[in-house]
Order: sequence, then C-alpha cells, then structure tokens
Amino acid sequence: MKDKMTIILFSGEMDKAIAAFTLATTAAASGMEVAIFFTFWGLNILKKSKFSITRSQNMLQKMFNFMSTSSLPITKLNMLGLGPWMMKKLMKKSKMASLEELMSLAKELKVKYIACTTSCGVLGLAKENLIDEVDEFAGASTYLNEAKDSKINLFI
Amino acid sequence: MKDKMTIILFSGEMDKAIAAFTLATTAAASGMEVAIFFTFWGLNILKKSKFSITRSQNMLQKMFNFMSTSSLPITKLNMLGLGPWMMKKLMKKSKMASLEELMSLAKELKVKYIACTTSCGVLGLAKENLIDEVDEFAGASTYLNEAKDSKINLFI
Amino acid sequence: MKDKMTIILFSGEMDKAIAAFTLATTAAASGMEVAIFFTFWGLNILKKSKFSITRSQNMLQKMFNFMSTSSLPITKLNMLGLGPWMMKKLMKKSKMASLEELMSLAKELKVKYIACTTSCGVLGLAKENLIDEVDEFAGASTYLNEAKDSKINLFI
Repeated sequence: MKDKMTIILFSGEMDKAIAAFTLATTAAASGMEVAIFFTFWGLNILKKSKFSITRSQNMLQKMFNFMSTSSLPITKLNMLGLGPWMMKKLMKKSKMASLEELMSLAKELKVKYIACTTSCGVLGLAKENLIDEVDEFAGASTYLNEAKDSKINLFI
Repeated sequence: MKDKMTIILFSGEMDKAIAAFTLATTAAASGMEVAIFFTFWGLNILKKSKFSITRSQNMLQKMFNFMSTSSLPITKLNMLGLGPWMMKKLMKKSKMASLEELMSLAKELKVKYIACTTSCGVLGLAKENLIDEVDEFAGASTYLNEAKDSKINLFI
Repeated sequence: MKDKMTIILFSGEMDKAIAAFTLATTAAASGMEVAIFFTFWGLNILKKSKFSITRSQNMLQKMFNFMSTSSLPITKLNMLGLGPWMMKKLMKKSKMASLEELMSLAKELKVKYIACTTSCGVLGLAKENLIDEVDEFAGASTYLNEAKDSKINLFI
C-alpha cells in the first residue's frame, strides 16, 4: 500500500497555494497518494477563470463572489498591490513552476481534488462553477477518513 | 482504543474557528477523541462574551485585550467591514451551523478544550476570564503528549 | 529510535515564529528529534540581521528583500504599528522567552534548520545571507522524507 498525504487548502492566497501544490506534486512524484481538500477561500483556486455569476445565487453570494474572485492575492505586500505581480516575475526569473504549471502537473500525477460541499453551499458555488479537474464533492468526514490513514496531514 | 485528533487553534478569526470546530465535531461524532489546544489569538474564542478588564492586568494587557476582544474578524474582506456580517448571513441562508452552535455541539461530544497557560500569562488572562467549558490549562508539553498518539494533528 | 516532529515554517510573523519555536524546543527538550523546514516568509527569520543586498540579486529581488526584511511583524494589530512593540513588552513582563532566546535554545537542543532551496532561489537568498545555524539547504522531497517518519507534522 502507498504512503498517503492529505492537505486541507483553506487559504486562497497564491503563495500558500504554491506551497501546497509544490508539496503535493513532489509527494505524488515520489509515489505517495495525495488528496487536497479545498475549503473556504481555497475554493477560489478551483473556480473557472471567468466565473459567471449564476442566477441561482442570492444577492449576498453574488457580492461575496465578486469580492473574492479574480486573481489570487498573496499574503503580504498587498497594500502596495505589488505582491502577485512581483512574485510571478521572480518565479519566472528563477524558473520556478507557476501555479498553473503545478496544477497541471498535479493532475498528471493523479493528485485527488476534493471540494468541500459545505463551503460550496455557503458560497453558492455549484459543480459547473468549478474546474472539471475536481474529483469529488464531499464533507469533513470524507477528509477525516483519508487523513486517518495518512502519514502527513497539513492545514494550509 | 479510540483514534485521536488534535488541533492547535492559533488563529482568532471566525472562518478559521469554524473550520476547526467543523473538523472537531465531525471527528468526535464519528467516534474519535478530539482535543483543541487554544493558543495566542485562539484564546479569544474562549473569552467570556462580556470580558471585564480585571484589576490584576497591567496597562499593556488592558490595551491588548481591548484591541483583541469583541467580535471575531474573518481573514478576508475586513477592510470593508463587511466580512463577518456577510458570512453570518450566508451561513444562515445555507443552514450552516454557526460557531456558537458548533461549540455547544463540541461540548456535547466531549471535545477537550485546553487553554495554553503561556499565552494566558502573556495576555493577562485568568481562569475566570475564560468560559467554563475549558477542561484544562496546560503548556506545550501536554499538547505534544496528546499529539504523539494522534492520527491527525493540525495547526490552524 | 526517537520520536520525530517536523514543522514547516511558512509564515514570517513574530507570533507564529514564537509558537513554532516554543513547540520545537519543548519537543526537543523532551527527547524528540525536531526539524524545522523554513520556506517563503519563514526564511526572513533566518536572515542575518543586517542583510546587505548582494550584487548578484536582480532589481526585483532587491525590492522584494527591501520590503520583507527588518523586524518581523505580528499577524494582528499591525495597522497601528503597536503589535510587535506591545507583544515584546508583554512577553518581557510575563517572563516569556523571546524569539532570540528560543532560537538559541533550539540550537542547544539540536533542532535541525532546513532552508528551502526553491524559496531561496525565488528570493535571491544565498547561503551567506542566512545565519550560520542553518544545517541544510534542501527541497520539498527532503521535507517529505522527514515528515513520513514523524509523529507530528505541522504547517505554520
């Protein structure tokens, strides 16, 4: 049986997402079985890039989504608006993989994406609002079952 | 013997607290033994709602508590002040349990609350400033003993 | 064989660094083998205090370092600039160990410091920019090997 790792990706910031996917892809490449459980702001990473506000959403969910979509911020330096721009530039210069590249690598390596159903409910997100690469929609008990058998469990 | 889970709740934000208590109650409901170790800002969640500043606190502790009490913020959207209000509304609409409901469920399910003595010391918090549901006041070594035997350990 | 613990220190905030080093030193003092993997903002903690901008850094890296050096902020209260100052005062009053004291204790107790090579590359940090106490420069796979055999793994 393969060694397992789980990551709860709660944060929607680009720097934390990159850390999560770097760990996930490195683990999967070395033969581990990896599952990422996307919850709260982490779901932003799974949104289709041009997320069209759906009819079924109520006014509050529309506002919420409007405020939380678009490009991912990074934890620091946001005040100046320089953060994400600078980070992308630096990553390119040092030939570090971008989040997009890491995510496509993750899928090649069969990293499992689980979207938290409870958070989707709160945010008014339906299946069709998220990218097709999501493997499963499930709640905390599914996560706990995965995590119980895993050697490494992280909350990011 | 029961499977165990520990959570260090370092953050005082509402969204992270909800994530922590959702995991804790789901785990406890499925038969796991769960302990939450509240430290730093996480102690805000355990404060009695009308926390009266005590005589024994020094000036700095008074200022610190004044600045960190009252309602829990959420990680994002605070700039506009809309965050916590919007989130509560959305949670109500989608029938998601509130933090208060999750906390009372956690106690029914015997989730253990451990308050970090070192952090209490720094913040000038005494036993009587925290809710009665706290099971134990202890330090990092108590946490480590719990965590060593646990299948899932998270820092939130 | 000793019980092991790993910590990924991603955050550069003083409060989170203190939490990480309190756990690390308590674990090491009780006989555990502890490794801290410093990545992204966590690398700030390992910078030499008077970090001189090196020639080999490009313009972007210079800006980035200029913005992220100097004293560590704390998660909250930064708007008013009171955070770090107040926290240091409070810690002193309550005789809590400072980050500097915790870090020198960590080295006495042989806590292993691993600096993430990928992050160093992005930030333009070379060996000579970090304190001599760093034991190893390595990537995610080294971390995963350590974490797989550890009883406690935290992401801070």
